[in-house]
Amino acid sequence: MIGRTLLQQARPITFAFKLANWLDQLTRCEAYLREVRNRALVLQFGGAVGTLAASGQEALSVLSRLAARLALAEPTIPWHTARDRFFEICSVCAMLSGCLGKIAGDVALLMQTEVGELSERAAEGRGGSSAMPHKRNPIAPTMIVAACTRLPGLLATMAAVMTQEQERAVGRWHAEWGPLIEIVSLTGGAIKQSNDLFSRLEVHSARMLENLELTQGSVYAEEVAVRLAKQMGKPEADRLVKRACQRAKEKRCHLREVLAWDPDVTNVIDQAALDEIFRPENALGIANQLIDRVLRGTITQLDPENKNG
Amino acid sequence: MIGRTLLQQARPITFAFKLANWLDQLTRCEAYLREVRNRALVLQFGGAVGTLAASGQEALSVLSRLAARLALAEPTIPWHTARDRFFEICSVCAMLSGCLGKIAGDVALLMQTEVGELSERAAEGRGGSSAMPHKRNPIAPTMIVAACTRLPGLLATMAAVMTQEQERAVGRWHAEWGPLIEIVSLTGGAIKQSNDLFSRLEVHSARMLENLELTQGSVYAEEVAVRLAKQMGKPEADRLVKRACQRAKEKRCHLREVLAWDPDVTNVIDQAALDEIFRPENALGIANQLIDRVLRGTITQLDPENKNG
Amino acid sequence: MIGRTLLQQARPITFAFKLANWLDQLTRCEAYLREVRNRALVLQFGGAVGTLAASGQEALSVLSRLAARLALAEPTIPWHTARDRFFEICSVCAMLSGCLGKIAGDVALLMQTEVGELSERAAEGRGGSSAMPHKRNPIAPTMIVAACTRLPGLLATMAAVMTQEQERAVGRWHAEWGPLIEIVSLTGGAIKQSNDLFSRLEVHSARMLENLELTQGSVYAEEVAVRLAKQMGKPEADRLVKRACQRAKEKRCHLREVLAWDPDVTNVIDQAALDEIFRPENALGIANQLIDRVLRGTITQLDPENKNG
Amino acid sequence: MIGRTLLQQARPITFAFKLANWLDQLTRCEAYLREVRNRALVLQFGGAVGTLAASGQEALSVLSRLAARLALAEPTIPWHTARDRFFEICSVCAMLSGCLGKIAGDVALLMQTEVGELSERAAEGRGGSSAMPHKRNPIAPTMIVAACTRLPGLLATMAAVMTQEQERAVGRWHAEWGPLIEIVSLTGGAIKQSNDLFSRLEVHSARMLENLELTQGSVYAEEVAVRLAKQMGKPEADRLVKRACQRAKEKRCHLREVLAWDPDVTNVIDQAALDEIFRPENALGIANQLIDRVLRGTITQLDPENKNG
Repeated sequence: MIGRTLLQQARPITFAFKLANWLDQLTRCEAYLREVRNRALVLQFGGAVGTLAASGQEALSVLSRLAARLALAEPTIPWHTARDRFFEICSVCAMLSGCLGKIAGDVALLMQTEVGELSERAAEGRGGSSAMPHKRNPIAPTMIVAACTRLPGLLATMAAVMTQEQERAVGRWHAEWGPLIEIVSLTGGAIKQSNDLFSRLEVHSARMLENLELTQGSVYAEEVAVRLAKQMGKPEADRLVKRACQRAKEKRCHLREVLAWDPDVTNVIDQAALDEIFRPENALGIANQLIDRVLRGTITQLDPENKNG
Repeated sequence: MIGRTLLQQARPITFAFKLANWLDQLTRCEAYLREVRNRALVLQFGGAVGTLAASGQEALSVLSRLAARLALAEPTIPWHTARDRFFEICSVCAMLSGCLGKIAGDVALLMQTEVGELSERAAEGRGGSSAMPHKRNPIAPTMIVAACTRLPGLLATMAAVMTQEQERAVGRWHAEWGPLIEIVSLTGGAIKQSNDLFSRLEVHSARMLENLELTQGSVYAEEVAVRLAKQMGKPEADRLVKRACQRAKEKRCHLREVLAWDPDVTNVIDQAALDEIFRPENALGIANQLIDRVLRGTITQLDPENKNG
Repeated sequence: MIGRTLLQQARPITFAFKLANWLDQLTRCEAYLREVRNRALVLQFGGAVGTLAASGQEALSVLSRLAARLALAEPTIPWHTARDRFFEICSVCAMLSGCLGKIAGDVALLMQTEVGELSERAAEGRGGSSAMPHKRNPIAPTMIVAACTRLPGLLATMAAVMTQEQERAVGRWHAEWGPLIEIVSLTGGAIKQSNDLFSRLEVHSARMLENLELTQGSVYAEEVAVRLAKQMGKPEADRLVKRACQRAKEKRCHLREVLAWDPDVTNVIDQAALDEIFRPENALGIANQLIDRVLRGTITQLDPENKNG
Repeated sequence: MIGRTLLQQARPITFAFKLANWLDQLTRCEAYLREVRNRALVLQFGGAVGTLAASGQEALSVLSRLAARLALAEPTIPWHTARDRFFEICSVCAMLSGCLGKIAGDVALLMQTEVGELSERAAEGRGGSSAMPHKRNPIAPTMIVAACTRLPGLLATMAAVMTQEQERAVGRWHAEWGPLIEIVSLTGGAIKQSNDLFSRLEVHSARMLENLELTQGSVYAEEVAVRLAKQMGKPEADRLVKRACQRAKEKRCHLREVLAWDPDVTNVIDQAALDEIFRPENALGIANQLIDRVLRGTITQLDPENKNG
């Protein structure tokens, strides 16, 4: 498939490479999620002002047993107005949902009628438009984007309410309850919908190849320029390739043909080499090595003792 | 000093206990800051679409050497549109500045003319009011609150821009530059001002003791009720203490005196025991044990090999 | 009462002046609320892409009759992805709740145990602390602040979702539903609680006068300096007053007494004039004229035809 | 051109209709901007606590003359901690930039390589990619989106800082300065870039027509179903059209041809009528009437006395 920058076709990538990018980010989110889970789920129990003054001399022991009973970690000190833990829970949710929102947005763009590289397998009563029977709406991406779009504002509230007055706040404590629940629920919903999305995702590889040809070879122009530059320097190479691109566009023919007719080019790159440049599999740089790195990293994280990791 | 909940005097604490609460939260922020520093400072280098297609077969080696040269970690895969790392840097800044903002807000409240438990030592040209020569303005708290108040909105932007399109985004990438710089600068400023605040902080312990007496003993009422409840049950004890509080308020006399005249009380708590209850040092619960726990935790973090930690 | 800047006692105001400030802001909010009500409650009805293509040639008439039936204004053109109206509804809610939050915050500060100028009349089961029977918690301010604190983040979401794609958005439309409802509900709750707050507000004017004396005359220092400056210039006047303030503080006596002993002062301001300066009613500037302006403005707005307005 | 919902081709519209939608929203923003300009640019001048106590008995006259000199409106009462006016200035900026962001986002989507309905005329040194000479990047949309994306978070700050303490706030006042400037600057930048965008916008009407044919007639399916439903009821009509759409897709032929072969259809819609349905100009509903309404509304606003408005 083609890689797109600023929504313009740029250079070839593979769908596996795109997936590896998503996976790499999700792997980091998962690691951070585990970490926060370990450190933020801590008992709050402190009495009126945090001194446990009404719990007698056995207060520390009560604290320990209560934490154990609730399967929460024991705090160093009560934390009624030190709200960083709740903030951190919300922050990792925002990170994860930001990642899922990026994926969902990309999928929706790749599902556009004019792009058609992905689609979501319709289910009974889902994804069809009653008024427009031909449509295949991106249902899961829509729901994921809807959820993720709400996170930043809710996170801002959780950040703002960290400034709680003295030993118990006037309102900023109470302001946490709604956003905390919504952030966790919306993130959970985005995870569920993402699972659903990937279980229904249809990949149209033929269309991916077709779209690579939409610009009639222009997406391989950079490689031509790189090769030419080795002989004639970058400015001259760029000028030459730019001119060829324009000519190809005007004559509505393939860039490879224009270049094949230009002796300034063929003196440096012969016909066979030119053909090689215009094959997508030769334009992927080190994509496959990078995919391997991501897979190894993910496997190691999921199964730290894996010998082949 | 008195602990305050909903800005009302509640029960005695010590200033050391308040400091321990702040320190505990700052210690967590510091740990998280180190962690983020280790994992978020990672090279981004990927060419147009992340495949390093223009860097030749030596691309991975270029990547490694560039990372080493810039003292950045090497990424698994380029991450041009996976912005979780920048988000995490901003998130830990928001956490830290939320914590500093909480402290600064508390200090400003304790510096109120009517409270007067803390003040900021004036410097030449700082903190005085030209029009009102008696004032001792909370300069550092004001600057800290000003900085911290801006973080939540800026963090919301950093969370929102994680959804970047395809291999390079239309605008959401560029939208990061301003907020990222501001978040780091504002947090840095808040740290600097906090250092300054603590270097100038004047603690008025006499006033702290005076303020404990403002309610004429009411802040010890809970302990009286706890003691009585052991004999007569909680409802009766609460009723009795409530009545005594009202009487003390009406007669503008000290709660201890009202209680000392009430045989229902003195039958359970003798005069000597009553006197003990109304001493602040006896009303602190396990505050000192909790302070020790915080100090041990902080020392361990700062110096993991400390033998006495 | 005393006016407070940076939470320090500054110069005398009256409680009526404070109320006039609140009223002035609320009057503006009310005017803007009416305006938004008139212009934002507009029918959205457009079919799949806004052309009403499935509604036949009578579409415009259907549009008109539907708007009339729903008591909504008729749009110029369907506005499925032009969300400024919903944003404006939320913006005026944020403005109003910002204003109510400011008032509630001030009330909570004035209810502090150490300030005691206002209190909230307790109701059965409301405002008392089970553990601390003496407390008079600011219940309504707490609920108002809790509501208002959530508005900025929710408004950020409503601002962000205005960028909806093409003729119907992938998720940003759906992301509106929750925040819109919450913003209106929270603002409604803040209004209700504010009504409740003002119906229970107890004003302690004796304490207001006592607090004016807390600084032993320093809050009148600016006026002394202004008078002296007319004779000796501002630098010399400021120096003189500053010295007197310091002396008063050191000797724990009233500023008026220190000044009365200083011939540099009494040469310019005689005893009778000095006494006048230290009366709160003489230190209010044009507060009463400003209150009248606010009341006239509010009356005019509520009853535009009022002859005496 | 085709109208798009959830990024899927839905039903025909015209580019003029899209422009009318944008214009309608911009017209509202412009009206609101003028309004805010009139009511928010008000002098703040009040002395230490708003009573103008240091300005003598002529204070009101000083206030009036100062306002006149600065070409600002005169306030009813000083408003040092009533910040609704600054909030409203920022709110209208957010509304306007939300609208410009929506437009910029749509333009970027319509400039996609695969869509190609719009482009931005390249300028010297602008919009070209050094590495990929064929690209025509959406420079102005990118800059507009970058600016607009920052507004919601900044607006959240301006909403949050409305809760300023007493007569002068501890930090929330100072927190306004940065965001206020940024909001106005970013909105100004978005306006400037939008002007630039429209001055360079190239409209590719041939491609708009081509894209209408991408689904081989499916975008006209709703109209077929509406016509059939009048005879056979909606369920049967929907079923019939859905089947035809599927068949057209499988056989890769045009929906009109499939329908022309189906006697269930041709019994209700004859060949000539079928041809009419599949002409884009017949599928626009009341788009042109709606455009006229928008133009009339805009003209009236720009020139209220226009007789033909």
